[in-house]
Amino acid sequence: MSWILTNDIYDKKSNKHYEGAYSQGNGYLNIRASFDEDLSEASQNDTFWRLPANVTLEKQRHTLSKWGIYIPGIYGNHPILGEEIINLPYPLGINLFYEGERLDMNTSSFTEFNRQLNLKNGLLQRELNWVTEANNIKVKYTRYCSMATKNMIVQKIELTPQNNGEIIINSFTDSDVTTNGYNHFKEIDIDKECQSVFITTDTDQQIGIHTDLNIVNENVKDNKISIIKNRLNNDTVLQLTVYKKIVIEKRTYFATSIDIDYCGDIKKQLENKIIAYSYEEDLQSHNKIWEEKWNQSDVVVTGNEDVQTAVRFSIYHLLRSANDKDTVAIDAKAYAGEAYFGHYFWDTEVYLLPFFIYTQPEYAKKLIKYRYNTLKGAKSNAEHYGYRGAKYSWESCITGREQCSSWQYADFEVHVTADVIFGLIHYCKNTNDEEFLINEGLEMMIETARYWMERTYKKGDRYHIQGVMGPDEYLAFTNDNTFTNYMVRYTLQATLETVSLAKVKKSDVLSNLNITEDELNKIEDIVNNIVLLVDKDDSFIEQCGNFMEFEDIDIDKIWLDKKRPFGQFISQERNYRSKVLKQADVVALLYLFRKDFDNKMKKNCIDYYEPITTHDSSLSYIFHSLVYSDIDEQEKAYNMLEKSLGIDLTEKGAAEGIHIANCGGIWQALVMGFAGLTNCLESDELKITNKLPDEIDSLSYKIYFKDSWYDIYVDHNESRVTPL
Amino acid sequence: MSWILTNDIYDKKSNKHYEGAYSQGNGYLNIRASFDEDLSEASQNDTFWRLPANVTLEKQRHTLSKWGIYIPGIYGNHPILGEEIINLPYPLGINLFYEGERLDMNTSSFTEFNRQLNLKNGLLQRELNWVTEANNIKVKYTRYCSMATKNMIVQKIELTPQNNGEIIINSFTDSDVTTNGYNHFKEIDIDKECQSVFITTDTDQQIGIHTDLNIVNENVKDNKISIIKNRLNNDTVLQLTVYKKIVIEKRTYFATSIDIDYCGDIKKQLENKIIAYSYEEDLQSHNKIWEEKWNQSDVVVTGNEDVQTAVRFSIYHLLRSANDKDTVAIDAKAYAGEAYFGHYFWDTEVYLLPFFIYTQPEYAKKLIKYRYNTLKGAKSNAEHYGYRGAKYSWESCITGREQCSSWQYADFEVHVTADVIFGLIHYCKNTNDEEFLINEGLEMMIETARYWMERTYKKGDRYHIQGVMGPDEYLAFTNDNTFTNYMVRYTLQATLETVSLAKVKKSDVLSNLNITEDELNKIEDIVNNIVLLVDKDDSFIEQCGNFMEFEDIDIDKIWLDKKRPFGQFISQERNYRSKVLKQADVVALLYLFRKDFDNKMKKNCIDYYEPITTHDSSLSYIFHSLVYSDIDEQEKAYNMLEKSLGIDLTEKGAAEGIHIANCGGIWQALVMGFAGLTNCLESDELKITNKLPDEIDSLSYKIYFKDSWYDIYVDHNESRVTPL
Repeated sequence: MSWILTNDIYDKKSNKHYEGAYSQGNGYLNIRASFDEDLSEASQNDTFWRLPANVTLEKQRHTLSKWGIYIPGIYGNHPILGEEIINLPYPLGINLFYEGERLDMNTSSFTEFNRQLNLKNGLLQRELNWVTEANNIKVKYTRYCSMATKNMIVQKIELTPQNNGEIIINSFTDSDVTTNGYNHFKEIDIDKECQSVFITTDTDQQIGIHTDLNIVNENVKDNKISIIKNRLNNDTVLQLTVYKKIVIEKRTYFATSIDIDYCGDIKKQLENKIIAYSYEEDLQSHNKIWEEKWNQSDVVVTGNEDVQTAVRFSIYHLLRSANDKDTVAIDAKAYAGEAYFGHYFWDTEVYLLPFFIYTQPEYAKKLIKYRYNTLKGAKSNAEHYGYRGAKYSWESCITGREQCSSWQYADFEVHVTADVIFGLIHYCKNTNDEEFLINEGLEMMIETARYWMERTYKKGDRYHIQGVMGPDEYLAFTNDNTFTNYMVRYTLQATLETVSLAKVKKSDVLSNLNITEDELNKIEDIVNNIVLLVDKDDSFIEQCGNFMEFEDIDIDKIWLDKKRPFGQFISQERNYRSKVLKQADVVALLYLFRKDFDNKMKKNCIDYYEPITTHDSSLSYIFHSLVYSDIDEQEKAYNMLEKSLGIDLTEKGAAEGIHIANCGGIWQALVMGFAGLTNCLESDELKITNKLPDEIDSLSYKIYFKDSWYDIYVDHNESRVTPL
Repeated sequence: MSWILTNDIYDKKSNKHYEGAYSQGNGYLNIRASFDEDLSEASQNDTFWRLPANVTLEKQRHTLSKWGIYIPGIYGNHPILGEEIINLPYPLGINLFYEGERLDMNTSSFTEFNRQLNLKNGLLQRELNWVTEANNIKVKYTRYCSMATKNMIVQKIELTPQNNGEIIINSFTDSDVTTNGYNHFKEIDIDKECQSVFITTDTDQQIGIHTDLNIVNENVKDNKISIIKNRLNNDTVLQLTVYKKIVIEKRTYFATSIDIDYCGDIKKQLENKIIAYSYEEDLQSHNKIWEEKWNQSDVVVTGNEDVQTAVRFSIYHLLRSANDKDTVAIDAKAYAGEAYFGHYFWDTEVYLLPFFIYTQPEYAKKLIKYRYNTLKGAKSNAEHYGYRGAKYSWESCITGREQCSSWQYADFEVHVTADVIFGLIHYCKNTNDEEFLINEGLEMMIETARYWMERTYKKGDRYHIQGVMGPDEYLAFTNDNTFTNYMVRYTLQATLETVSLAKVKKSDVLSNLNITEDELNKIEDIVNNIVLLVDKDDSFIEQCGNFMEFEDIDIDKIWLDKKRPFGQFISQERNYRSKVLKQADVVALLYLFRKDFDNKMKKNCIDYYEPITTHDSSLSYIFHSLVYSDIDEQEKAYNMLEKSLGIDLTEKGAAEGIHIANCGGIWQALVMGFAGLTNCLESDELKITNKLPDEIDSLSYKIYFKDSWYDIYVDHNESRVTPL
């Protein structure tokens, strides 16, 4: 490769993975790469109760295929899972019937199967040679979500028969679909006349979908529109002529009541969206937009195809899932599946945001604005828990109110509130966006500081944060998690600095926020006296209070098959009281605050924690790779990165969506790790320290740093920074 | 009162409470005291997903009435709640139609309403004067679950009209019922011919129900059998003659595939159960059995009507809910409702068992046998958690496997496993049942000891139990909870003693259990070295390790309305990390091991813990009352008891069932507390220490102690023990 991902053996069992891995998107909508036609044994309207901890209760669903059409911002209310992304009606349906046989990937005979995703422009293609009793038909599908006409999906089907015959093209839009087993459609209105479907969700949002079928070069023998259950069918009978290619184009248009230009009437809105265009023209504009995106964001790797593929795959999904709205973010599965229900985690700020800050700053701003726009929800969280201020949700969705249904995360994994502010600071520093920092950011800072004032507990002179889960989710209920306390101190310090800045620049903002001197003194007192279990003499950081009292267990004895997660071999009960980590915790701290710790501290800590870390979370390896790079252990750094490269590629882990945090992590491992770029929190000057491992010949990429663009190049002989 | 509970104002809102409070049972089945007829606005077949933590998600259901017919041992599999008691079809239906109007307590006009439960024999009666447009009909209902014919419920309806007219008696059996919103009926087979209904549950158990209607003194004008949906109707038209009383008797028979005499065919089984009898004869036998039960178990209180009522109410429910089978126990709601899903908790051993041990030893044995019969489930729990041996379930049901769907209790509230053994020892000591102790009990002891061997953690020389919730459920995740560690040590010590006994008496049992010397040494090592945070110098017991580090909070400032539970005013997150207790924890220990601690220790501890205890659990006051009795603070002891007396009576708390643990507790507060009876674990000799508070003139009761019966009498002048 360098740009094309290819799958040329159709295997039922891995089909769902490819649907996720080859997902497409354009900043308005996202679609899974499921087939255009129906697939037998893969019903799409199962209803069941998906529970947050469903491992033992739930039978695996949708094992072969899962349609997925998502417009971020369109969400439903699930009685257990809370606000969740809605899987919209499937309008991409195109069944082919030849003499009574329907083309079905699970039952039909075919040869020369091949499907491809072009990362450069997000074009999805599938080719096969359909072998029927009396004919051989070459079928080629092409599909893209237009970057030029954002609410349009374009499909092209090309049919080349080896014999004459009659074929029926059954184009359909199916509204009989569920999201995580739940029906979020309050009303379904199918307009046969206009070939349109209108949905009202259980949150009273509206969506309109219209499809246009265009048989480019053939006369239609017959055409029939019908509605069967909630499926709108458009059946066209065509005559096949030996070796004559038939081209069918299908365009699907979406309109919603949350469109920024919404006119107040969903039917009218949809009408407005149906525009004249030419296929070639649209594709050209689409390609151009993709080209511009890549121009800013590409990372070129030489000497290592695996790394090149993985980083381009990662960047592709980051680019296609970044939304044009600032009322949504990028969910944990990058809108390529329904696991995690379309919720947003700390991933946003810690794993994804750096990529956008340094290559697509306008999208970085949208992600930060999303947090500002959900501040109200964060405030209602704090109130719910009995505190003033704002507590950002462990799992956030549209309103910002907590959507996590497993209380231990919702209640205790509080570091996210500090992580959000960390992200805000990171963005503002790089863009010099003081305007935003003072006008919107300061409010976020003050409200979260108010939360911390009550969530911390002063005992004697020292402040504690008790009852906390750090990034390591295998210790659920600890006191004074160092990552959390450190992050809180950092954000409170920055809050004080921003208050000082605002005093000079825009004091009216301060009075609007009603900040009192008492509050500022309290913040300062916390900054100065919060417990940090960092022992500079011994060069060691304790993950949390009494960490050493947790039970020592023989990890190898318990973990019988290291191909499966450690968590599958130990009960949660035992896990929660044992000295074993799910993921980077102190190690994450060592990366995020690289300049605060010396190499001895970093080495001591990673040497202690890594052997008791299971890396059961896909978020773990990357931070280890970054710290190993930092302390010049390139071999280990590469090994850790290597374990992350294949998660959604060779390991076929994309069935339920993309591990998008890992994608952001891979980018960081190369740019911040191997190319040793200092970030703008560490230094006002762009600096690189070449840490390239043997396995890679060179790295080059563009970077946006402190409001300027640079070309970076590193290989084993030189390191070059070229201002643009 | 002394025997009759009366309610003479019908109030919609409290109706559900009376259904629970006036529940009946006979050791085979239990029924809620819902009306014979349909009640408007009270549908019985709602389906919904009841979640374990449903406070915020679930709307209140069945607000006006909840039918409930339960045969312990008949259970279903609920996808979230696990094994749960099944609410069986309602066969008690009798609607009265007079000239088109149906008698309905929510819509009809009536006067002279009155309903009563006779605690002496479990007879439920209701009287009212039904005012229709053209008639006044005196209606009297009587109902009992026969103690003589165990699988029979008898109903009698007497009608006395003031005018002539025509009445329709609609007798029905309705299978359209759900349990906690879930349908557990896999098959419903309604036999119109035989007036029978056959149910197959989702666990493949079978139940047959047959009803017989007998119009005693009237000619039937017309009779019609019909099935509407899942309701079997039997409509009889009768002529009413002015002032002539009509008597209708209805008998309902049950048969199940778990009957001990089950013949293998449910239809035949049901046939066998339908026997000839006369109403008067059966009632006489029924009364006699109740008389015998009361003869052993009554507690006579003089000078305090409230205490007398409460203790008889408590004893009544203990007696009627104790089952004849040893494959079930008494669930947390005493089969008078569906809260807690028919599950069994530590209540059984700690709150209920003493009553049975000392007044109904054969039922005590059944409760212990239930634990023996579910040892297999306890073993599979241990295996599930990754340990050898047996771990009793926090919520147990039929198989003994864990049924608690809130993981923090299932995982961490491990003291139940020791409590079960404590109950076993208590029972065996009092009955001198060495046979049972060695043949069955030892296996329970050894298997639970094996669990503790792995669940404890040796650090240096000392054993810890980490990751534990004690009886106080407001601290979810602590180390070395003293109650738990103390109880574990006690049961391990008893295990070693029982092994020694078996060595002498029946060594083959030992070899069957494969006990090794290493295991015995390990048990001894734990007994000698388990951490107990009991400071004899300071006369203080710490609830758990680092208890003093939990956050001090201002309870009064948070708890704005003390009529509602404290837990409603604080988030679980904050609660779990604050120094505030739900219920007796150290105080429970001080009672259960009274003789181990001196008065100074008891006083110090209760003085420290009581002010930070919210008593949010109904299990809390009683143990406080008992410890106050013990340290001669009778006024406080009475005050604490007083708070428990009205839970299911004046406070109308029985809507979802009876707080049966509290019932057992009230008995203990009087017998063990005010009358100061030593239990057989404390002393081989029966001793009483008169601790009667001013509010009570005298107490008298029978007691079974170390295999002999005694009469006990205490008043403010004397204390008498009379062997029988």
